[in-house]
Amino acid sequence: MKNYIKADEWRIIEEGFDPHYNKISESIFSLGNGRMGQRANFEEAYSGDTLLGNYVAGVYYPDKTRVGWWKNGYPEYFAKVLNAANWVVIDVLLDGEQLDLAKCEVISFRRELNMKEGYLKRDFHAKTASGKEVKVEAIRFCSMADDETGAIKYTITPLNFSGEITLIPAIDGDVVNKDSNYDEKFWDEVSKATQPNGGYVVMRTKKTGFEVATGMQYSILQNGETIKPVAEAIEKEKYVASKVTLQAKEGEAISIIKYAANLSSQNYKPEELVERLNATLNRISSKGFDTMLAEQAAAWAEKWKHNDIIIDGDISAQQAIRFNIYQLNQTYTGEDDRLNIGPKGFTGEKYGGSTYWDTEAYCVPFYLSTAPQKVTRNLLLYRYKQLGKAIENAQLLGFKNGAALYPMVTMDGTECHNEWEITFEEIHRNGAIAFAIYNYVRYTGDEAYLGDYGLEVLLGIARFWSQRVNWSEDREQYVMLGVTGPNEYENNVNNNWYTSTIATWCMRYTIEVAEKVKAENPEKYAALVSKTNLDEETEFGRFRHIIEKMYYPYDEKRQIFLQQDGYLDKEQILVKDLPASERPINQKWSWDRILRSCYIKQADVLQGIYFFEDQYDMDTIRRNYDFYEPRTVHESSLSPCVHAIIAAKLGDEARAYEFYLRTARLDLDDYNNDTEDGCHITSMAGTWMAVVEGFAGMRVNDGKLSFQPFIPGKWSSFSFHIGFRGALLNVKVSKDGVQIKNASDVETKVLVYGKERVVKANDDLLVEA
Amino acid sequence: MKNYIKADEWRIIEEGFDPHYNKISESIFSLGNGRMGQRANFEEAYSGDTLLGNYVAGVYYPDKTRVGWWKNGYPEYFAKVLNAANWVVIDVLLDGEQLDLAKCEVISFRRELNMKEGYLKRDFHAKTASGKEVKVEAIRFCSMADDETGAIKYTITPLNFSGEITLIPAIDGDVVNKDSNYDEKFWDEVSKATQPNGGYVVMRTKKTGFEVATGMQYSILQNGETIKPVAEAIEKEKYVASKVTLQAKEGEAISIIKYAANLSSQNYKPEELVERLNATLNRISSKGFDTMLAEQAAAWAEKWKHNDIIIDGDISAQQAIRFNIYQLNQTYTGEDDRLNIGPKGFTGEKYGGSTYWDTEAYCVPFYLSTAPQKVTRNLLLYRYKQLGKAIENAQLLGFKNGAALYPMVTMDGTECHNEWEITFEEIHRNGAIAFAIYNYVRYTGDEAYLGDYGLEVLLGIARFWSQRVNWSEDREQYVMLGVTGPNEYENNVNNNWYTSTIATWCMRYTIEVAEKVKAENPEKYAALVSKTNLDEETEFGRFRHIIEKMYYPYDEKRQIFLQQDGYLDKEQILVKDLPASERPINQKWSWDRILRSCYIKQADVLQGIYFFEDQYDMDTIRRNYDFYEPRTVHESSLSPCVHAIIAAKLGDEARAYEFYLRTARLDLDDYNNDTEDGCHITSMAGTWMAVVEGFAGMRVNDGKLSFQPFIPGKWSSFSFHIGFRGALLNVKVSKDGVQIKNASDVETKVLVYGKERVVKANDDLLVEA
Repeated sequence: MKNYIKADEWRIIEEGFDPHYNKISESIFSLGNGRMGQRANFEEAYSGDTLLGNYVAGVYYPDKTRVGWWKNGYPEYFAKVLNAANWVVIDVLLDGEQLDLAKCEVISFRRELNMKEGYLKRDFHAKTASGKEVKVEAIRFCSMADDETGAIKYTITPLNFSGEITLIPAIDGDVVNKDSNYDEKFWDEVSKATQPNGGYVVMRTKKTGFEVATGMQYSILQNGETIKPVAEAIEKEKYVASKVTLQAKEGEAISIIKYAANLSSQNYKPEELVERLNATLNRISSKGFDTMLAEQAAAWAEKWKHNDIIIDGDISAQQAIRFNIYQLNQTYTGEDDRLNIGPKGFTGEKYGGSTYWDTEAYCVPFYLSTAPQKVTRNLLLYRYKQLGKAIENAQLLGFKNGAALYPMVTMDGTECHNEWEITFEEIHRNGAIAFAIYNYVRYTGDEAYLGDYGLEVLLGIARFWSQRVNWSEDREQYVMLGVTGPNEYENNVNNNWYTSTIATWCMRYTIEVAEKVKAENPEKYAALVSKTNLDEETEFGRFRHIIEKMYYPYDEKRQIFLQQDGYLDKEQILVKDLPASERPINQKWSWDRILRSCYIKQADVLQGIYFFEDQYDMDTIRRNYDFYEPRTVHESSLSPCVHAIIAAKLGDEARAYEFYLRTARLDLDDYNNDTEDGCHITSMAGTWMAVVEGFAGMRVNDGKLSFQPFIPGKWSSFSFHIGFRGALLNVKVSKDGVQIKNASDVETKVLVYGKERVVKANDDLLVEA
Repeated sequence: MKNYIKADEWRIIEEGFDPHYNKISESIFSLGNGRMGQRANFEEAYSGDTLLGNYVAGVYYPDKTRVGWWKNGYPEYFAKVLNAANWVVIDVLLDGEQLDLAKCEVISFRRELNMKEGYLKRDFHAKTASGKEVKVEAIRFCSMADDETGAIKYTITPLNFSGEITLIPAIDGDVVNKDSNYDEKFWDEVSKATQPNGGYVVMRTKKTGFEVATGMQYSILQNGETIKPVAEAIEKEKYVASKVTLQAKEGEAISIIKYAANLSSQNYKPEELVERLNATLNRISSKGFDTMLAEQAAAWAEKWKHNDIIIDGDISAQQAIRFNIYQLNQTYTGEDDRLNIGPKGFTGEKYGGSTYWDTEAYCVPFYLSTAPQKVTRNLLLYRYKQLGKAIENAQLLGFKNGAALYPMVTMDGTECHNEWEITFEEIHRNGAIAFAIYNYVRYTGDEAYLGDYGLEVLLGIARFWSQRVNWSEDREQYVMLGVTGPNEYENNVNNNWYTSTIATWCMRYTIEVAEKVKAENPEKYAALVSKTNLDEETEFGRFRHIIEKMYYPYDEKRQIFLQQDGYLDKEQILVKDLPASERPINQKWSWDRILRSCYIKQADVLQGIYFFEDQYDMDTIRRNYDFYEPRTVHESSLSPCVHAIIAAKLGDEARAYEFYLRTARLDLDDYNNDTEDGCHITSMAGTWMAVVEGFAGMRVNDGKLSFQPFIPGKWSSFSFHIGFRGALLNVKVSKDGVQIKNASDVETKVLVYGKERVVKANDDLLVEA
């Protein structure tokens, strides 16, 4: 755990330069706009430790996988988030000496992420080996208002010399992925050109054939005046640059403004890329840096209007929650239903793929409440569009008749994960995808979605479950063998309670939705029956038989759901009794020892209780929580939030707050020593959930929001924005009670502390605690 | 399945050349002498499909492993059997045109492995693209009498032309491993030289630093006369050759005799290698090819005296059983306790490593009966010497206090396998290593071995088991969680009956041996207690408690041992009811489907019943056999033999013979379409077991051999040699009964058909059926 980030309500601040923290800061200070993003690499050369990262959403590379022993059914490729052309580069020479902070005395250094307005600012004062001192200020952003573009203003002032300052703005496409399995480069050059005030590189990905045109234009200011210096064009493999040498005077600032754009063949014909790129660059450079920056601030203000959380009385918590929300907004905007939420967003390349079950289980609740309805709908449509591939995926594994198994990790619907115990067995992901449909409809009331898209997906998923169980003659019940639950510290277990529970829930919900669609829209239903070759009687009959005869492991003595068969055979030493020296077990223990142990990586039975809370009474929830939480090591960043929510429900406010703290500053404080690889984007949604569903106790019941809030002792109040069926609410929880402001024309009913209240349009409601 | 090998009692014969079978034949016709070996690659150039293979026992390379997702505890390296310098090469040019069967019309072709005398002979008549016809005869062998050497006699006769024939004998060290994980070459050149009539290359392995000197001398005969033609020396990277051009006359044979030797730094100081190599080459070339060949025949005659099996009435079976015995003898001679029995011997590089539990479970019975006692003793000492590494290996996984876990695959004692479900969980291998000690002592009566070496190994193994189980509060019994049994179609199961059974057996046997050593040799025992820090009371107390309170899964209804917890939850469709199109399931089904199924790869419960047969009554054996065999797909070559032995015991002669057939010609007929990778050496011992322990029903009881023979219907008689405590027996089983000849001065008691008999020294015993 580090503690070098300065507290501030709206900004992430690093002061002083410690090269050991550089890769961590590159992750934390990342920029993105849903369409493209980048790590906070320096503009000028840096020969120290760095992880270069520029990413274009949806552009991936199917790297040939690397496994020890091939298992039948493994996919051949693993879709990697691609490191793309770097448009940040501005090399700086001072009388020919390269400016490189790894080789300078860094007299002062400050990096600041302005979350309110969406830009990264860096100032430093450095002295080179030859004794030249310069002051630099660099501001840059990826535009939210114009999401194919970004800009940098880089200002350098010689402090103790006059002489030549050379600026070399470049587009450098000659990049590699650190996680390339066979040290391949993933891009081929298509074309490039240098232009009087800029240049571009067009590259094509191997195998997938995506083309991306990345270009720049720049202008230079000396003493605040734009000048037109002579530039020398430089071209290398996948690289273009302009070399501009200026006579600088001590104390006088020189600025370069670099406009950049990234256009992808996902959105344009390849042959039009260059023309459109140039048009885009002309447009933004005409508009100018200051205008772009103002648009950026406005776009972020609109975001914050819908999803800010204000915490009074705890600056560190305030900074953290905003950082989580900020990163989620940078990662996914919901504009494009081909995109999804990578576990590292635009902050690193680790894990590859863009889509995990994290999206449905953790991110959907965040976007449902804080973004327009279409954003979540697009996340759902993403899966709908990939249904065909999910069916193919299931076929590869021997399933039939339209059974769908969504991949564990994917870009385009194709499975690209290969560890048998996860790829083939962590099938509960299918359940989360169905649950997200339910969650979306429950929240939005958009029942039309079910007939249009949802039911078809549900049917594929339910079919999978109905084939995945088998009848045990011995038990005279259906069983689900060979699965891995959310707790990945167990592999290939039988009858994981969570998986079996969500499986029958999927079948039940599918029948329910089918009946509803059939009743309300018989034509649509008939079309679906025909499209899917649904034999309602036989198939739903089988679903019902499974629902009726499913086996769920249960311990009578303790009256708890059993995580899986045989769980109680394990040595039951609680986490609190484990020596600190043996934790985290995923670093200290061999894998078999972890598997044999009773320790739980993340909510498993409790994940089911979180999803299906309504089905369990408080005593049941408490017994299971009291049994499982003390056995949980929370070694996944997705673990604490579910526990925070359940603890809050059970009135255990102290533990709820403790769980919240575990993820709120996970990346800012580099809790797990892995932020250098990128931020934990999807778990950030969990942090939001811990506040809204945990502390504020927000739920949706029968088309109404309900709140059962409490306030962590250290805070004086907290408030958040919620969009719900047209109403725009700001909910403020303080010691005194709950205030709900409705900033819309839509009146809405809510339950507060169990009582129904009305929040009138454009009005306030105050409920005392 | 192929069927191109001609039947012959003593020879393996291929007639006609089918390039599609070439790699299969290269495996089948492999040569070896325990110290070195090679695939049956051609001497002259061959541009067709071939897998080059020359191997030097004990020389390996730790290739950096390739895994998908790293698990804690994985070894970093996988020891590969190294493809070493090729000394077979004799390039041939006919008036400058390269002789290459891939580019010729092959008019006739014959390859013959003479198993009786231990050489490979190849004849062909080919016509080159330009129309030149030649006849070639090539004979070669790896000398059993002088195991660092080999020789080739290569005779070429121009049939329709007179002209220049150029011969280029070479040593080619510029070889690669096909299974190199990162396409690395594993050898560096140390030195090389061409000499007037030969040359050598010394190479050093990267990382491991083994040096191997491979050299040749040659002589040339024309018209039966040795000639001394001018030779041009050729040197390239890791390559030396002599180019000899001769004026050949139509119809007159030219022969080259190439003597070769391989010396390794395992046996000599690196700086002496060249000198010793030259001395060796001088020695064998002075001796001459014919003398060497005669010595080879004599050495093989001595082998066959001890381990031939004669089958009357079935040539195909006769050929097959000899082929199995022949390959076992080529692979391991027991001269060197640093060596072991690789699963592919010297016939291919696949699987790497040299030592699997196959050695103890399948090969020990073969060598015990057919080779001097020291051969098996050396196999045991191999593990004794690696005890320290087995203790380190267990420590890496969190075990303490001298607990030893032998590796799944190894060269030098270091684990080099990494698939968590095997490496960490297929721990029953530890039991087989203990069982081999028991088996050796039971067979030989060499109880001194226990005090000298055996007990120390047993203690390490028993300690492992005592730490690997855990007390289940829920069951109030000890359980063994997270294991993979011999049936690798189940992974990470709980309470595998076989593993739990062999675990408690190990602890029981350890205590028994400790008590015996303590009573008979208190000083040795005291030394061992001190060396191992044995706390007899506490540790043996724990062993006893585990033995008493161990949980073994059992099905009361069927009265069978349960393979593992939950086995009966699986869908129980018998193998006979599986469509042929779905088999072998390891090719047709995804891995998860295999894991979920009830199908068994190889004997698991039945392996335990085979090992501990004495503990079970006939009904118990029958019930378990009747339950498990119909669920077994026998997709491991190690499966049928155990089933054959149990079927024979149960009087199911037809099935016993059927199982025997499945492995007897496994490689000769390329049953599994994988012989091109190499032969299944260790399963060949299983074939021997099926005859001797199956058909002849041989057992060792109370220091006596017993026989309960039957004869497969198709055979008129079969006989085999058995060495037992100084007696040399030949046991012949015919329809009439059993004849046992004792060719030694040691009288021995045997049980035949349950009755005790005496076989006097140098006498015969005849027992009617």
